[in-house]
Amino acid sequence: MGKPQLSAMTAFDPGQSIEELKRIYHLDKIIKLDTNENIYGASPMLMEKVADAIRDLSNYPDCKATILREALAKKYHISPNSLLFGSGLDEVIQIINRTFLDDGDNIVAADPTFSEYYIQARIEGAEVRKVPTVEGKHDLEGMLQAIDKHTQLVWICNPNNPTGTYLNEQELSRFVSLVPKDTTIVVDEAYIEYVSATDYPDTLSLLKHHQNVIILRTFSKAYGLASFRIGYAMADQSIINKLEITRLPFNTSKVSQLAAYAALEDQEFLLSCVRKNKKARDFVVDYCQSHDIKCFPSQTNFVFITLENPKSAHEALLKAGFLTQLHPNGLRISMGEYRDMKDLCQLLSDHLKKELV
Amino acid sequence: MGKPQLSAMTAFDPGQSIEELKRIYHLDKIIKLDTNENIYGASPMLMEKVADAIRDLSNYPDCKATILREALAKKYHISPNSLLFGSGLDEVIQIINRTFLDDGDNIVAADPTFSEYYIQARIEGAEVRKVPTVEGKHDLEGMLQAIDKHTQLVWICNPNNPTGTYLNEQELSRFVSLVPKDTTIVVDEAYIEYVSATDYPDTLSLLKHHQNVIILRTFSKAYGLASFRIGYAMADQSIINKLEITRLPFNTSKVSQLAAYAALEDQEFLLSCVRKNKKARDFVVDYCQSHDIKCFPSQTNFVFITLENPKSAHEALLKAGFLTQLHPNGLRISMGEYRDMKDLCQLLSDHLKKELV
Repeated sequence: MGKPQLSAMTAFDPGQSIEELKRIYHLDKIIKLDTNENIYGASPMLMEKVADAIRDLSNYPDCKATILREALAKKYHISPNSLLFGSGLDEVIQIINRTFLDDGDNIVAADPTFSEYYIQARIEGAEVRKVPTVEGKHDLEGMLQAIDKHTQLVWICNPNNPTGTYLNEQELSRFVSLVPKDTTIVVDEAYIEYVSATDYPDTLSLLKHHQNVIILRTFSKAYGLASFRIGYAMADQSIINKLEITRLPFNTSKVSQLAAYAALEDQEFLLSCVRKNKKARDFVVDYCQSHDIKCFPSQTNFVFITLENPKSAHEALLKAGFLTQLHPNGLRISMGEYRDMKDLCQLLSDHLKKELV
Repeated sequence: MGKPQLSAMTAFDPGQSIEELKRIYHLDKIIKLDTNENIYGASPMLMEKVADAIRDLSNYPDCKATILREALAKKYHISPNSLLFGSGLDEVIQIINRTFLDDGDNIVAADPTFSEYYIQARIEGAEVRKVPTVEGKHDLEGMLQAIDKHTQLVWICNPNNPTGTYLNEQELSRFVSLVPKDTTIVVDEAYIEYVSATDYPDTLSLLKHHQNVIILRTFSKAYGLASFRIGYAMADQSIINKLEITRLPFNTSKVSQLAAYAALEDQEFLLSCVRKNKKARDFVVDYCQSHDIKCFPSQTNFVFITLENPKSAHEALLKAGFLTQLHPNGLRISMGEYRDMKDLCQLLSDHLKKELV
């Protein structure tokens, strides 16, 4: 019954809820640093606009998301037909995999990177070729070698989740020019708003010169709309037209479309979040460097700390009320408020010293 | 590039927008009777609750939709693990097709019925076996004959969209008992709240006795939440567990989950919509019968009128400001306000008389 490949897969496991964790660890409060949400919330301006929008609930949403589409087309100077919207980037990634992959195909992606790339390819029965990162960075040479004539999709998460590292203009441009033209390169820029590096790629210009590039962006991170589910793809119209066949017509809700539009208008709020995030991120990275804690440089709203025993560090932080994301070789820590990050760093440092004893 | 079956498919075509139609037909107002939305809106009680809910936007929604899940489990006396939520039934249908179908499989469905069943099966590369309806009703004998060992899914839209007809307890029970146990029967009850027939099947009890049945319901129709995108499946946990692998973890937004929960609580609003709908529906069906206009009996919030020249009737109604849904052999007309339906019937009757001349 059903696709045979599913029998080897399991559903997403959300783990214990915050309420359960509070009970287990006898905590009044847990600071959630495990899912890279915007801890500063969303633009206060949009509350009112969204409340207005939800007075007319019983009609289907605009299946073209016209208002949001036109605003983004104008912002990026691209055709409105070069955009595709999804219920979060999760759904956009699903649409891309479902459109491009067939039996016998493969995808190439970094390891670690955003796991939805792997999951969606596996559901389609495609082979997942993982190329280990080097110091948290995509191994572009390794990825080029992994590509063959059955490679439909190459995934570049830039900056990379969960490592936080980035590929610069020169690295990405060279890579794109070397990938065969019939392989599609998806550049997932979910965290782009947090980037401060001046040599970060101008992917929109890349898009103009390469018909096999898809760029992904989202309102779930810096724009603070994770609860609403809006992500989007930008690509050549020939690609978008193909993806549109697989997209469900009413995949984004009306209120989400309007919230994203309203959020776009408040760039001041966005910039203030980005500034506060950078202050916390710089502090954590500096602290790690000066305390012999190994972490990858980050251009995102999280920092990946590599650890010999991440499980015990995860547990120690959780006992103190900080929920971080556990990985086999470290912790991915979403940047919280500056003062909380100071506490967290102190706690982590104390914990690691105790382990040495 | 991509799945070969997609090259024979096209994306959803939303047609002209209401604004475009107003311009073309020089109309100030168009009464939208083409998409079976709840013209009475949504519960006024939920506006406030939803507005409250959207104060915390930047966190991911509860991937289990716990509050809504528990409310529905209690309402139906089923296990919370027997439920799966989607961004509208569209997405639930997509999840079911993507989970169950592989190359060489087929689905069996009525013709006409809700077209998303066909579309999603085609994307998966499965064969679509359409069994023509008889007088708008599912031909259950024909469907049984169409089932073979490669039939993964049989779709029963009850009441059927776009014809409005229903299968009664006896008809459905017999059918379910004759379908092979390794074929899954999906009973889509998107319009169940509008049913007034007393011999309508007790599908929840069917669910208890058959592990190969999935029931679909939605908040997009009688609950008036089409803009929000919440539909759900009920089935044996073994089926739900499988579907959960294919479901994206954050496929429904937080505000949608809460709106659906709030809508559930206002059963009085629901019943008042159902009552008003029945009055309009009874009027239209009676009018058709007494004016020699052929229509199918309806248990929904729309009536299907069969016509020799549906295109000219569609155009005539549109010119007068009524947008209906055009089909090859008739019009599917969503029930508007009672007074509007009187006008529409008069217009249609006049138009048909003119055609006879």
